[in-house]
Amino acid sequence: VRVPSCHHRDSAMVIGREMSPAGLRATPIKGFILDITGVLYNSMEGTDGIPIQGSVEAVNRLYSESRVRFLSNESTGTVSHVVGKLGRLGYSGIRAEDIITPAPTAAEYCRMNGLRPHLLVHPGIRSVFDGISQEDPNCVLIGDAEHAFTFKAINTAFRHLMKMRDPLLLSLGCGKFYQRTDGPCIDVGAFAEALKFASGCRHVVVGKPRPDYFQTALDSLGMDKEEVVMIGDDIVSDVGGAMKFGMRAIQVRTGKWRSEWESHEVKPTLIANDLLSAVRACID
Amino acid sequence: VRVPSCHHRDSAMVIGREMSPAGLRATPIKGFILDITGVLYNSMEGTDGIPIQGSVEAVNRLYSESRVRFLSNESTGTVSHVVGKLGRLGYSGIRAEDIITPAPTAAEYCRMNGLRPHLLVHPGIRSVFDGISQEDPNCVLIGDAEHAFTFKAINTAFRHLMKMRDPLLLSLGCGKFYQRTDGPCIDVGAFAEALKFASGCRHVVVGKPRPDYFQTALDSLGMDKEEVVMIGDDIVSDVGGAMKFGMRAIQVRTGKWRSEWESHEVKPTLIANDLLSAVRACID
Repeated sequence: VRVPSCHHRDSAMVIGREMSPAGLRATPIKGFILDITGVLYNSMEGTDGIPIQGSVEAVNRLYSESRVRFLSNESTGTVSHVVGKLGRLGYSGIRAEDIITPAPTAAEYCRMNGLRPHLLVHPGIRSVFDGISQEDPNCVLIGDAEHAFTFKAINTAFRHLMKMRDPLLLSLGCGKFYQRTDGPCIDVGAFAEALKFASGCRHVVVGKPRPDYFQTALDSLGMDKEEVVMIGDDIVSDVGGAMKFGMRAIQVRTGKWRSEWESHEVKPTLIANDLLSAVRACID
Repeated sequence: VRVPSCHHRDSAMVIGREMSPAGLRATPIKGFILDITGVLYNSMEGTDGIPIQGSVEAVNRLYSESRVRFLSNESTGTVSHVVGKLGRLGYSGIRAEDIITPAPTAAEYCRMNGLRPHLLVHPGIRSVFDGISQEDPNCVLIGDAEHAFTFKAINTAFRHLMKMRDPLLLSLGCGKFYQRTDGPCIDVGAFAEALKFASGCRHVVVGKPRPDYFQTALDSLGMDKEEVVMIGDDIVSDVGGAMKFGMRAIQVRTGKWRSEWESHEVKPTLIANDLLSAVRACID
Protein backbone atom coordinates (compact mmCIF):
# COMPACT_ATOMS: atom_id res chain seq x y z
CA VAL A 1 0.00 0.00 0.00
CA ARG A 2 1.41 3.32 -1.01
CA VAL A 3 1.32 6.00 1.64
CA PRO A 4 0.87 9.41 0.05
CA SER A 5 2.60 12.47 1.41
CA CYS A 6 0.78 15.11 3.42
CA HIS A 7 1.06 17.38 0.43
CA HIS A 8 -1.05 14.98 -1.59
CA ARG A 9 -3.56 14.49 1.16
CA ASP A 10 -4.01 18.23 1.51
CA SER A 11 -4.35 18.93 -2.19
CA ALA A 12 -7.04 16.27 -2.54
CA MET A 13 -9.31 18.25 -0.29
CA VAL A 14 -9.37 21.27 -2.56
CA ILE A 15 -9.53 19.76 -6.05
CA GLY A 16 -12.89 19.57 -7.78
CA ARG A 17 -16.38 20.61 -6.88
CA GLU A 18 -17.37 18.01 -4.31
CA MET A 19 -14.19 17.08 -2.56
CA SER A 20 -15.29 17.80 0.98
CA PRO A 21 -17.06 15.29 3.22
CA ALA A 22 -19.86 17.85 3.30
CA GLY A 23 -20.39 17.42 -0.46
CA LEU A 24 -20.16 13.69 -0.01
CA ARG A 25 -23.04 13.75 2.46
CA ALA A 26 -25.18 16.41 0.82
CA THR A 27 -27.93 13.76 0.63
CA PRO A 28 -28.12 10.67 2.88
CA ILE A 29 -25.99 7.66 1.93
CA LYS A 30 -27.97 4.44 2.25
CA GLY A 31 -25.92 1.95 0.27
CA PHE A 32 -22.42 1.10 -0.92
CA ILE A 33 -21.01 -0.52 -3.99
CA LEU A 34 -17.46 -1.70 -3.43
CA ASP A 35 -14.82 -2.71 -5.89
CA ILE A 36 -12.92 -5.74 -4.58
CA THR A 37 -9.32 -5.96 -5.82
CA GLY A 38 -7.21 -3.07 -4.54
CA VAL A 39 -9.96 -2.09 -2.08
CA LEU A 40 -10.49 -5.22 0.01
CA TYR A 41 -7.07 -6.72 -0.68
CA ASN A 42 -3.92 -6.24 -2.74
CA SER A 43 -3.10 -8.95 -5.28
CA MET A 44 0.00 -11.06 -4.87
CA GLU A 45 1.01 -13.55 -7.53
CA GLY A 46 0.54 -17.16 -6.52
CA THR A 47 -1.35 -16.30 -3.33
CA ASP A 48 -4.81 -15.07 -2.33
CA GLY A 49 -3.34 -11.63 -1.79
CA ILE A 50 -3.00 -9.44 1.30
CA PRO A 51 -6.00 -7.82 3.04
CA ILE A 52 -5.81 -4.03 3.19
CA GLN A 53 -5.68 -2.78 6.76
CA GLY A 54 -9.10 -1.79 8.09
CA SER A 55 -11.00 -3.17 5.11
CA VAL A 56 -12.24 -6.28 6.93
CA GLU A 57 -13.64 -4.06 9.68
CA ALA A 58 -15.28 -1.74 7.16
CA VAL A 59 -16.82 -4.57 5.15
CA ASN A 60 -18.10 -6.37 8.25
CA ARG A 61 -19.81 -3.23 9.42
CA LEU A 62 -21.54 -2.53 6.08
CA TYR A 63 -22.34 -6.17 5.44
CA SER A 64 -23.99 -6.64 8.82
CA GLU A 65 -26.30 -3.75 7.92
CA SER A 66 -27.09 -5.39 4.53
CA ARG A 67 -26.25 -2.29 2.60
CA VAL A 68 -23.35 -3.27 0.40
CA ARG A 69 -22.80 -5.05 -2.89
CA PHE A 70 -19.46 -5.96 -4.46
CA LEU A 71 -19.02 -4.93 -8.10
CA SER A 72 -15.82 -6.24 -9.65
CA ASN A 73 -14.27 -6.46 -13.10
CA GLU A 74 -12.43 -9.59 -11.96
CA SER A 75 -12.28 -12.08 -14.79
CA THR A 76 -9.71 -14.65 -13.69
CA GLY A 77 -12.06 -16.69 -11.49
CA THR A 78 -15.71 -17.51 -10.91
CA VAL A 79 -17.81 -15.87 -8.22
CA SER A 80 -17.45 -18.94 -5.99
CA HIS A 81 -13.68 -18.67 -6.47
CA VAL A 82 -13.89 -15.04 -5.31
CA VAL A 83 -16.04 -15.99 -2.30
CA GLY A 84 -13.49 -18.64 -1.32
CA LYS A 85 -10.58 -16.25 -1.64
CA LEU A 86 -12.31 -13.51 0.34
CA GLY A 87 -13.15 -16.03 3.07
CA ARG A 88 -9.51 -17.05 3.36
CA LEU A 89 -8.55 -13.37 3.57
CA GLY A 90 -10.88 -12.82 6.53
CA TYR A 91 -14.01 -11.61 4.73
CA SER A 92 -16.25 -14.34 6.08
CA GLY A 93 -19.89 -14.93 5.39
CA ILE A 94 -20.14 -13.03 2.10
CA ARG A 95 -22.78 -14.61 -0.11
CA ALA A 96 -22.11 -15.30 -3.78
CA GLU A 97 -25.27 -13.41 -4.80
CA ASP A 98 -23.83 -10.18 -3.39
CA ILE A 99 -20.79 -10.34 -5.68
CA ILE A 100 -21.13 -9.23 -9.29
CA THR A 101 -18.43 -10.10 -11.82
CA PRO A 102 -18.60 -9.53 -15.57
CA ALA A 103 -18.34 -13.11 -16.87
CA PRO A 104 -21.87 -14.23 -15.87
CA THR A 105 -23.24 -10.92 -17.19
CA ALA A 106 -21.42 -11.50 -20.48
CA ALA A 107 -22.73 -15.07 -20.70
CA GLU A 108 -26.27 -13.73 -20.28
CA TYR A 109 -25.54 -11.04 -22.91
CA CYS A 110 -24.45 -13.77 -25.33
CA ARG A 111 -27.61 -15.81 -24.67
CA MET A 112 -29.88 -12.76 -25.13
CA ASN A 113 -28.20 -11.64 -28.35
CA GLY A 114 -27.57 -14.95 -30.09
CA LEU A 115 -23.82 -14.53 -29.75
CA ARG A 116 -21.47 -17.48 -30.18
CA PRO A 117 -18.25 -16.26 -28.58
CA HIS A 118 -14.73 -17.32 -29.34
CA LEU A 119 -13.24 -17.20 -25.83
CA LEU A 120 -9.92 -15.51 -25.09
CA VAL A 121 -10.22 -15.80 -21.33
CA HIS A 122 -8.54 -17.13 -18.23
CA PRO A 123 -8.96 -20.90 -17.83
CA GLY A 124 -10.59 -20.15 -14.47
CA ILE A 125 -13.78 -18.75 -16.05
CA ARG A 126 -14.31 -20.92 -19.14
CA SER A 127 -16.92 -22.95 -17.25
CA VAL A 128 -19.13 -19.84 -16.96
CA PHE A 129 -19.76 -20.16 -20.72
CA ASP A 130 -20.67 -23.85 -20.68
CA GLY A 131 -23.84 -24.39 -22.65
CA ILE A 132 -23.30 -21.40 -24.94
CA SER A 133 -22.43 -22.46 -28.47
CA GLN A 134 -18.95 -21.45 -29.49
CA GLU A 135 -19.13 -22.96 -32.98
CA ASP A 136 -18.71 -20.62 -35.96
CA PRO A 137 -18.11 -17.64 -33.64
CA ASN A 138 -19.81 -14.30 -34.34
CA CYS A 139 -17.91 -12.44 -31.64
CA VAL A 140 -14.71 -12.65 -29.63
CA LEU A 141 -14.99 -12.46 -25.85
CA ILE A 142 -11.85 -11.31 -24.08
CA GLY A 143 -11.08 -11.29 -20.37
CA ASP A 144 -7.96 -10.94 -18.31
CA ALA A 145 -6.44 -14.12 -19.70
CA GLU A 146 -3.06 -13.45 -18.05
CA HIS A 147 -0.59 -16.11 -19.19
CA ALA A 148 -3.17 -17.44 -21.67
CA PHE A 149 -2.44 -14.26 -23.66
CA THR A 150 0.01 -16.02 -25.97
CA PHE A 151 0.74 -14.74 -29.47
CA LYS A 152 -1.03 -17.77 -30.87
CA ALA A 153 -4.17 -17.23 -28.78
CA ILE A 154 -4.28 -13.51 -29.60
CA ASN A 155 -3.76 -14.22 -33.29
CA THR A 156 -6.47 -16.88 -33.31
CA ALA A 157 -8.92 -14.36 -31.83
CA PHE A 158 -7.79 -11.79 -34.42
CA ARG A 159 -8.39 -14.25 -37.26
CA HIS A 160 -11.89 -14.96 -36.00
CA LEU A 161 -12.61 -11.21 -36.02
CA MET A 162 -11.22 -10.87 -39.56
CA LYS A 163 -13.61 -13.57 -40.77
CA MET A 164 -16.74 -11.90 -39.38
CA ARG A 165 -18.98 -9.72 -41.51
CA ASP A 166 -19.53 -7.35 -38.58
CA PRO A 167 -16.66 -8.11 -36.21
CA LEU A 168 -17.58 -7.67 -32.55
CA LEU A 169 -15.40 -7.78 -29.46
CA LEU A 170 -16.88 -8.18 -25.98
CA SER A 171 -14.47 -7.42 -23.16
CA LEU A 172 -14.86 -8.20 -19.47
CA GLY A 173 -14.03 -4.70 -18.30
CA CYS A 174 -11.52 -2.54 -20.14
CA GLY A 175 -8.96 -1.73 -17.47
CA LYS A 176 -5.52 -0.39 -18.29
CA PHE A 177 -3.76 -2.23 -15.50
CA TYR A 178 -4.17 -3.69 -12.04
CA GLN A 179 -1.74 -3.60 -9.20
CA ARG A 180 0.02 -6.58 -7.69
CA THR A 181 2.42 -6.42 -4.77
CA ASP A 182 5.28 -7.01 -7.22
CA GLY A 183 4.17 -4.24 -9.58
CA PRO A 184 1.48 -3.17 -12.04
CA CYS A 185 0.09 -5.71 -14.52
CA ILE A 186 -1.23 -4.85 -17.96
CA ASP A 187 -4.96 -5.56 -18.07
CA VAL A 188 -7.60 -6.74 -20.52
CA GLY A 189 -8.31 -3.26 -21.91
CA ALA A 190 -4.89 -3.16 -23.53
CA PHE A 191 -5.41 -6.46 -25.34
CA ALA A 192 -8.87 -5.29 -26.41
CA GLU A 193 -7.25 -2.16 -27.91
CA ALA A 194 -4.78 -4.35 -29.80
CA LEU A 195 -7.58 -6.39 -31.39
CA LYS A 196 -9.61 -3.25 -32.17
CA PHE A 197 -6.64 -1.57 -33.83
CA ALA A 198 -5.80 -4.58 -35.98
CA SER A 199 -9.31 -5.65 -36.98
CA GLY A 200 -11.40 -2.48 -36.85
CA CYS A 201 -14.04 -4.37 -34.82
CA ARG A 202 -16.84 -2.94 -32.72
CA HIS A 203 -16.18 -3.15 -28.98
CA VAL A 204 -18.74 -3.67 -26.22
CA VAL A 205 -17.53 -3.54 -22.63
CA VAL A 206 -19.26 -5.78 -20.12
CA GLY A 207 -18.42 -4.46 -16.66
CA LYS A 208 -17.43 -1.13 -15.19
CA PRO A 209 -17.56 1.66 -16.39
CA ARG A 210 -20.75 0.65 -18.27
CA PRO A 211 -23.88 2.30 -16.72
CA ASP A 212 -25.98 -0.88 -16.89
CA TYR A 213 -23.37 -2.74 -14.87
CA PHE A 214 -23.68 -0.22 -12.02
CA GLN A 215 -27.46 -0.52 -12.40
CA THR A 216 -27.20 -4.28 -11.78
CA ALA A 217 -25.69 -3.57 -8.37
CA LEU A 218 -28.32 -0.90 -7.60
CA ASP A 219 -31.10 -3.32 -8.53
CA SER A 220 -29.62 -5.88 -6.18
CA LEU A 221 -29.51 -3.29 -3.37
CA GLY A 222 -33.02 -2.08 -4.25
CA MET A 223 -31.79 1.51 -4.10
CA ASP A 224 -31.53 4.52 -6.41
CA LYS A 225 -28.21 5.83 -7.64
CA GLU A 226 -28.63 9.01 -5.58
CA GLU A 227 -28.65 6.90 -2.41
CA VAL A 228 -25.48 4.89 -3.09
CA VAL A 229 -21.74 5.58 -3.10
CA MET A 230 -19.24 3.68 -5.24
CA ILE A 231 -15.82 3.07 -3.69
CA GLY A 232 -12.95 1.85 -5.87
CA ASP A 233 -9.27 2.12 -6.73
CA ASP A 234 -9.64 2.65 -10.50
CA ILE A 235 -10.11 6.32 -11.37
CA VAL A 236 -11.67 5.48 -14.75
CA SER A 237 -13.64 2.23 -14.34
CA ASP A 238 -14.81 2.73 -10.75
CA VAL A 239 -14.89 6.45 -10.05
CA GLY A 240 -15.33 7.89 -13.53
CA GLY A 241 -17.93 5.30 -14.50
CA ALA A 242 -19.99 5.78 -11.34
CA MET A 243 -19.89 9.58 -11.46
CA LYS A 244 -20.83 9.68 -15.14
CA PHE A 245 -23.74 7.42 -14.25
CA GLY A 246 -24.83 9.92 -11.57
CA MET A 247 -23.52 8.33 -8.40
CA ARG A 248 -21.16 9.70 -5.83
CA ALA A 249 -17.78 7.97 -5.87
CA ILE A 250 -14.81 7.69 -3.57
CA GLN A 251 -11.30 6.99 -4.86
CA VAL A 252 -9.15 5.11 -2.37
CA ARG A 253 -5.39 5.50 -2.17
CA THR A 254 -4.86 1.72 -2.18
CA GLY A 255 -4.51 -0.90 -4.93
CA LYS A 256 -3.57 0.70 -8.24
CA TRP A 257 -3.74 4.26 -6.87
CA ARG A 258 -1.28 6.68 -8.49
CA SER A 259 -0.38 10.00 -6.87
CA GLU A 260 -0.69 11.77 -10.25
CA TRP A 261 -4.41 10.99 -10.12
CA GLU A 262 -4.77 13.81 -7.58
CA SER A 263 -4.96 15.99 -10.70
CA HIS A 264 -6.77 13.48 -12.96
CA GLU A 265 -9.53 14.83 -15.18
CA VAL A 266 -11.93 12.59 -13.24
CA LYS A 267 -12.67 14.39 -9.98
CA PRO A 268 -13.87 11.95 -7.31
CA THR A 269 -16.45 13.06 -4.77
CA LEU A 270 -13.76 12.23 -2.22
CA ILE A 271 -10.26 10.75 -2.21
CA ALA A 272 -9.76 8.64 0.92
CA ASN A 273 -6.69 6.84 2.17
CA ASP A 274 -8.41 3.47 2.26
CA LEU A 275 -11.78 1.77 2.47
CA LEU A 276 -12.14 2.24 6.23
CA SER A 277 -11.49 5.99 5.95
CA ALA A 278 -13.95 6.16 3.07
CA VAL A 279 -16.69 4.38 5.00
CA ARG A 280 -16.12 6.51 8.08
CA ALA A 281 -16.39 9.68 5.98
CA CYS A 282 -19.77 8.40 4.79
CA ILE A 283 -21.46 7.19 7.93
CA ASP A 284 -19.69 8.35 11.10
CA VAL B 1 -3.04 -14.76 -53.48
CA ARG B 2 -6.54 -13.49 -53.62
CA VAL B 3 -7.92 -12.93 -57.12
CA PRO B 4 -10.36 -10.03 -57.11
CA SER B 5 -13.48 -10.04 -59.25
CA CYS B 6 -13.75 -8.03 -62.46
CA HIS B 7 -16.13 -5.73 -60.67
CA HIS B 8 -13.38 -4.77 -58.25
CA ARG B 9 -10.84 -4.34 -60.98
CA ASP B 10 -13.14 -2.05 -62.92
CA SER B 11 -14.09 0.11 -59.98
CA ALA B 12 -10.44 0.64 -59.13
CA MET B 13 -9.95 2.49 -62.37
CA VAL B 14 -12.45 5.20 -61.56
CA ILE B 15 -11.86 5.86 -57.86
CA GLY B 16 -9.77 8.85 -56.87
CA ARG B 17 -8.04 11.59 -58.75
CA GLU B 18 -5.08 9.82 -60.26
CA MET B 19 -6.22 6.28 -60.81
CA SER B 20 -5.42 6.03 -64.49
CA PRO B 21 -2.03 4.99 -65.85
CA ALA B 22 -2.01 8.44 -67.48
CA GLY B 23 -2.04 10.06 -64.02
CA LEU B 24 0.61 7.62 -62.90
CA ARG B 25 2.91 8.75 -65.68
CA ALA B 26 2.13 12.47 -65.62
CA THR B 27 5.84 13.03 -64.92
CA PRO B 28 8.61 10.52 -65.78
CA ILE B 29 9.22 7.66 -63.36
CA LYS B 30 12.92 7.15 -62.74
CA GLY B 31 13.00 5.02 -59.63
CA PHE B 32 11.09 2.49 -57.59
CA ILE B 33 10.78 1.76 -53.91
CA LEU B 34 9.38 -1.71 -53.31
CA ASP B 35 7.91 -3.23 -50.22
CA ILE B 36 9.09 -6.83 -49.85
CA THR B 37 6.64 -9.07 -47.99
CA GLY B 38 3.38 -9.48 -49.90
CA VAL B 39 4.93 -7.89 -53.01
CA LEU B 40 7.93 -10.10 -53.76
CA TYR B 41 6.62 -13.18 -51.92
CA ASN B 42 3.82 -14.36 -49.69
CA SER B 43 4.77 -15.50 -46.20
CA MET B 44 4.30 -19.11 -45.18
CA GLU B 45 4.97 -20.22 -41.62
CA GLY B 46 8.09 -22.32 -41.22
CA THR B 47 9.30 -21.70 -44.77
CA ASP B 48 10.90 -18.88 -46.76
CA GLY B 49 7.52 -18.21 -48.34
CA ILE B 50 6.24 -18.42 -51.92
CA PRO B 51 7.37 -16.01 -54.67
CA ILE B 52 4.51 -14.05 -56.23
CA GLN B 53 4.15 -14.85 -59.91
CA GLY B 54 5.95 -12.34 -62.12
CA SER B 55 7.67 -10.57 -59.25
CA VAL B 56 11.08 -12.15 -59.88
CA GLU B 57 10.89 -10.96 -63.51
CA ALA B 58 9.85 -7.47 -62.43
CA VAL B 59 12.57 -7.17 -59.80
CA ASN B 60 15.30 -8.49 -62.14
CA ARG B 61 14.33 -5.91 -64.72
CA LEU B 62 14.39 -2.96 -62.29
CA TYR B 63 17.45 -4.19 -60.44
CA SER B 64 19.51 -4.58 -63.61
CA GLU B 65 18.78 -0.94 -64.34
CA SER B 66 19.88 0.07 -60.79
CA ARG B 67 16.74 1.95 -60.11
CA VAL B 68 15.13 0.17 -57.22
CA ARG B 69 15.44 0.05 -53.44
CA PHE B 70 13.61 -2.27 -51.07
CA LEU B 71 11.92 -0.57 -48.12
CA SER B 72 10.47 -3.03 -45.62
CA ASN B 73 8.97 -2.92 -42.14
CA GLU B 74 10.23 -6.48 -41.62
CA SER B 75 11.44 -6.90 -38.06
CA THR B 76 11.80 -10.64 -37.59
CA GLY B 77 15.23 -10.96 -39.22
CA THR B 78 18.36 -9.01 -40.07
CA VAL B 79 19.05 -7.61 -43.53
CA SER B 80 21.43 -10.48 -44.26
CA HIS B 81 18.65 -12.87 -43.27
CA VAL B 82 16.36 -11.10 -45.77
CA VAL B 83 19.02 -11.29 -48.50
CA GLY B 84 19.43 -15.01 -47.90
CA LYS B 85 15.71 -15.64 -47.99
CA LEU B 86 15.22 -13.60 -51.16
CA GLY B 87 18.07 -15.49 -52.78
CA ARG B 88 16.46 -18.83 -52.00
CA LEU B 89 13.19 -17.52 -53.44
CA GLY B 90 14.86 -16.68 -56.75
CA TYR B 91 15.74 -13.03 -56.17
CA SER B 92 19.45 -13.47 -56.73
CA GLY B 93 22.19 -10.90 -56.53
CA ILE B 94 20.38 -8.35 -54.37
CA ARG B 95 22.87 -6.47 -52.23
CA ALA B 96 22.29 -5.90 -48.52
CA GLU B 97 22.83 -2.15 -48.94
CA ASP B 98 19.78 -1.91 -51.19
CA ILE B 99 17.48 -3.31 -48.52
CA ILE B 100 16.23 -1.02 -45.75
CA THR B 101 14.61 -2.48 -42.63
CA PRO B 102 13.65 -0.56 -39.51
CA ALA B 103 15.84 -2.28 -36.89
CA PRO B 104 19.18 -0.74 -37.99
CA THR B 105 17.44 2.63 -38.35
CA ALA B 106 16.07 2.28 -34.81
CA ALA B 107 19.47 1.29 -33.46
CA GLU B 108 20.92 4.44 -35.01
CA TYR B 109 18.02 6.48 -33.55
CA CYS B 110 18.86 5.09 -30.11
CA ARG B 111 22.56 5.96 -30.48
CA MET B 112 21.76 9.49 -31.67
CA ASN B 113 19.26 10.20 -28.89
CA GLY B 114 20.93 8.53 -25.92
CA LEU B 115 18.19 5.93 -25.69
CA ARG B 116 18.68 2.71 -23.73
CA PRO B 117 15.95 0.46 -25.06
CA HIS B 118 14.24 -2.41 -23.34
CA LEU B 119 13.81 -4.79 -26.28
CA LEU B 120 10.51 -6.52 -27.00
CA VAL B 121 11.60 -7.94 -30.34
CA HIS B 122 12.01 -11.14 -32.31
CA PRO B 123 15.11 -13.11 -31.28
CA GLY B 124 16.25 -12.81 -34.90
CA ILE B 125 17.05 -9.08 -34.60
CA ARG B 126 18.43 -8.75 -31.06
CA SER B 127 21.96 -8.73 -32.46
CA VAL B 128 21.23 -5.49 -34.31
CA PHE B 129 21.21 -3.75 -30.92
CA ASP B 130 24.50 -5.18 -29.68
CA GLY B 131 26.64 -2.42 -28.26
CA ILE B 132 23.70 -0.23 -27.26
CA SER B 133 23.25 -0.07 -23.50
CA GLN B 134 20.04 -1.63 -22.33
CA GLU B 135 20.62 -0.99 -18.64
CA ASP B 136 18.08 1.19 -16.79
CA PRO B 137 15.95 1.55 -19.94
CA ASN B 138 14.54 4.94 -20.90
CA CYS B 139 12.40 3.55 -23.74
CA VAL B 140 10.80 0.33 -24.89
CA LEU B 141 11.54 -0.82 -28.42
CA ILE B 142 8.93 -3.14 -29.90
CA GLY B 143 9.08 -5.13 -33.12
CA ASP B 144 7.12 -8.01 -34.56
CA ALA B 145 8.16 -10.37 -31.79
CA GLU B 146 5.71 -13.08 -32.93
CA HIS B 147 5.82 -15.94 -30.42
CA ALA B 148 8.05 -13.86 -28.13
CA PHE B 149 4.88 -11.81 -27.43
CA THR B 150 4.13 -13.67 -24.21
CA PHE B 151 2.08 -12.10 -21.43
CA LYS B 152 5.19 -12.01 -19.30
CA ALA B 153 7.27 -10.23 -21.97
CA ILE B 154 4.50 -7.71 -22.70
CA ASN B 155 4.00 -7.06 -18.99
CA THR B 156 7.73 -6.61 -18.42
CA ALA B 157 7.79 -3.98 -21.19
CA PHE B 158 4.72 -2.33 -19.64
CA ARG B 159 6.39 -2.17 -16.22
CA HIS B 160 9.46 -0.52 -17.72
CA LEU B 161 7.21 2.13 -19.30
CA MET B 162 5.39 2.69 -15.99
CA LYS B 163 8.72 3.36 -14.26
CA MET B 164 9.84 6.04 -16.76
CA ARG B 165 9.36 9.72 -16.08
CA ASP B 166 8.54 10.33 -19.76
CA PRO B 167 7.60 6.89 -21.09
CA LEU B 168 8.56 6.39 -24.72
CA LEU B 169 7.75 3.53 -27.06
CA LEU B 170 9.64 3.02 -30.33
CA SER B 171 8.00 0.61 -32.73
CA LEU B 172 9.50 -0.99 -35.83
CA GLY B 173 6.62 -0.08 -38.11
CA CYS B 174 3.05 0.06 -36.82
CA GLY B 175 1.25 -2.38 -39.10
CA LYS B 176 -2.16 -3.79 -38.24
CA PHE B 177 -1.48 -7.21 -39.73
CA TYR B 178 0.48 -9.08 -42.37
CA GLN B 179 -0.70 -11.92 -44.52
CA ARG B 180 0.56 -15.47 -44.40
CA THR B 181 -0.63 -18.25 -46.66
CA ASP B 182 -2.57 -19.73 -43.71
CA GLY B 183 -4.24 -16.42 -42.85
CA PRO B 184 -3.67 -12.90 -41.54
CA CYS B 185 -1.34 -12.35 -38.57
CA ILE B 186 -1.71 -9.57 -36.04
CA ASP B 187 1.26 -7.23 -36.33
CA VAL B 188 3.43 -5.02 -34.14
CA GLY B 189 1.12 -1.99 -34.37
CA ALA B 190 -1.52 -3.80 -32.32
CA PHE B 191 0.90 -4.56 -29.50
CA ALA B 192 2.16 -0.97 -29.62
CA GLU B 193 -1.45 0.20 -29.18
CA ALA B 194 -1.85 -2.10 -26.19
CA LEU B 195 1.21 -0.61 -24.47
CA LYS B 196 0.15 2.95 -25.35
CA PHE B 197 -3.35 2.41 -23.96
CA ALA B 198 -2.12 0.92 -20.70
CA SER B 199 0.82 3.25 -20.01
CA GLY B 200 -0.09 6.51 -21.74
CA CYS B 201 3.40 6.57 -23.31
CA ARG B 202 4.60 8.60 -26.27
CA HIS B 203 4.99 6.55 -29.45
CA VAL B 204 7.57 7.03 -32.19
CA VAL B 205 7.31 4.82 -35.28
CA VAL B 206 10.55 3.82 -36.98
CA GLY B 207 9.65 2.61 -40.47
CA LYS B 208 6.85 3.21 -42.93
CA PRO B 209 4.70 5.35 -42.96
CA ARG B 210 7.19 7.84 -41.45
CA PRO B 211 8.37 10.42 -44.04
CA ASP B 212 12.04 10.23 -43.05
CA TYR B 213 12.01 6.48 -43.67
CA PHE B 214 10.91 7.02 -47.28
CA GLN B 215 13.56 9.74 -47.51
CA THR B 216 16.23 7.18 -46.55
CA ALA B 217 15.33 5.14 -49.63
CA LEU B 218 15.27 8.25 -51.85
CA ASP B 219 18.69 9.26 -50.56
CA SER B 220 20.00 5.82 -51.41
CA LEU B 221 18.57 6.10 -54.94
CA GLY B 222 19.84 9.68 -55.26
CA MET B 223 16.47 10.76 -56.58
CA ASP B 224 13.68 13.17 -55.62
CA LYS B 225 10.30 11.99 -54.42
CA GLU B 226 8.64 13.30 -57.61
CA GLU B 227 10.75 10.87 -59.64
CA VAL B 228 9.99 7.71 -57.66
CA VAL B 229 7.00 5.39 -57.23
CA MET B 230 6.32 3.34 -54.10
CA ILE B 231 4.78 -0.10 -54.63
CA GLY B 232 3.36 -2.02 -51.68
CA ASP B 233 0.56 -4.18 -50.33
CA ASP B 234 -0.25 -2.13 -47.20
CA ILE B 235 -2.75 0.64 -47.92
CA VAL B 236 -1.70 2.62 -44.83
CA SER B 237 2.03 2.03 -44.30
CA ASP B 238 3.10 1.76 -47.93
CA VAL B 239 0.58 3.65 -50.05
CA GLY B 240 -0.81 6.16 -47.55
CA GLY B 241 2.62 6.95 -46.16
CA ALA B 242 4.23 7.46 -49.56
CA MET B 243 1.38 9.60 -50.91
CA LYS B 244 1.27 11.78 -47.81
CA PHE B 245 5.01 12.27 -48.26
CA GLY B 246 4.38 13.41 -51.85
CA MET B 247 5.24 10.31 -53.85
CA ARG B 248 3.12 8.36 -56.28
CA ALA B 249 2.14 4.97 -54.94
CA ILE B 250 0.76 1.74 -56.35
CA GLN B 251 -1.27 -0.67 -54.28
CA VAL B 252 -0.90 -4.28 -55.39
CA ARG B 253 -3.65 -6.86 -55.03
CA THR B 254 -1.24 -9.39 -53.47
CA GLY B 255 -0.08 -10.05 -49.90
CA LYS B 256 -2.45 -8.52 -47.37
CA TRP B 257 -4.67 -6.92 -50.03
CA ARG B 258 -8.36 -6.69 -49.04
CA SER B 259 -11.09 -6.08 -51.64
CA GLU B 260 -12.76 -3.53 -49.34
CA TRP B 261 -9.70 -1.33 -49.83
CA GLU B 262 -11.05 -0.47 -53.30
CA SER B 263 -13.08 2.13 -51.36
CA HIS B 264 -10.45 2.90 -48.68
CA GLU B 265 -9.97 6.54 -47.69
CA VAL B 266 -6.42 6.24 -49.01
CA LYS B 267 -6.66 6.52 -52.80
CA PRO B 268 -3.60 4.96 -54.47
CA THR B 269 -2.26 6.45 -57.68
CA LEU B 270 -2.99 3.03 -59.16
CA ILE B 271 -4.23 -0.34 -57.96
CA ALA B 272 -2.47 -3.13 -59.86
CA ASN B 273 -2.99 -6.87 -59.70
CA ASP B 274 0.62 -7.56 -58.79
CA LEU B 275 4.14 -6.16 -58.95
CA LEU B 276 4.70 -7.13 -62.57
CA SER B 277 1.51 -5.35 -63.67
CA ALA B 278 2.49 -2.35 -61.59
CA VAL B 279 5.96 -2.12 -63.13
CA ARG B 280 4.55 -2.55 -66.65
CA ALA B 281 2.08 0.27 -66.03
CA CYS B 282 5.04 2.46 -65.08
CA ILE B 283 7.62 1.75 -67.75
CA ASP B 284 6.18 -0.11 -70.73
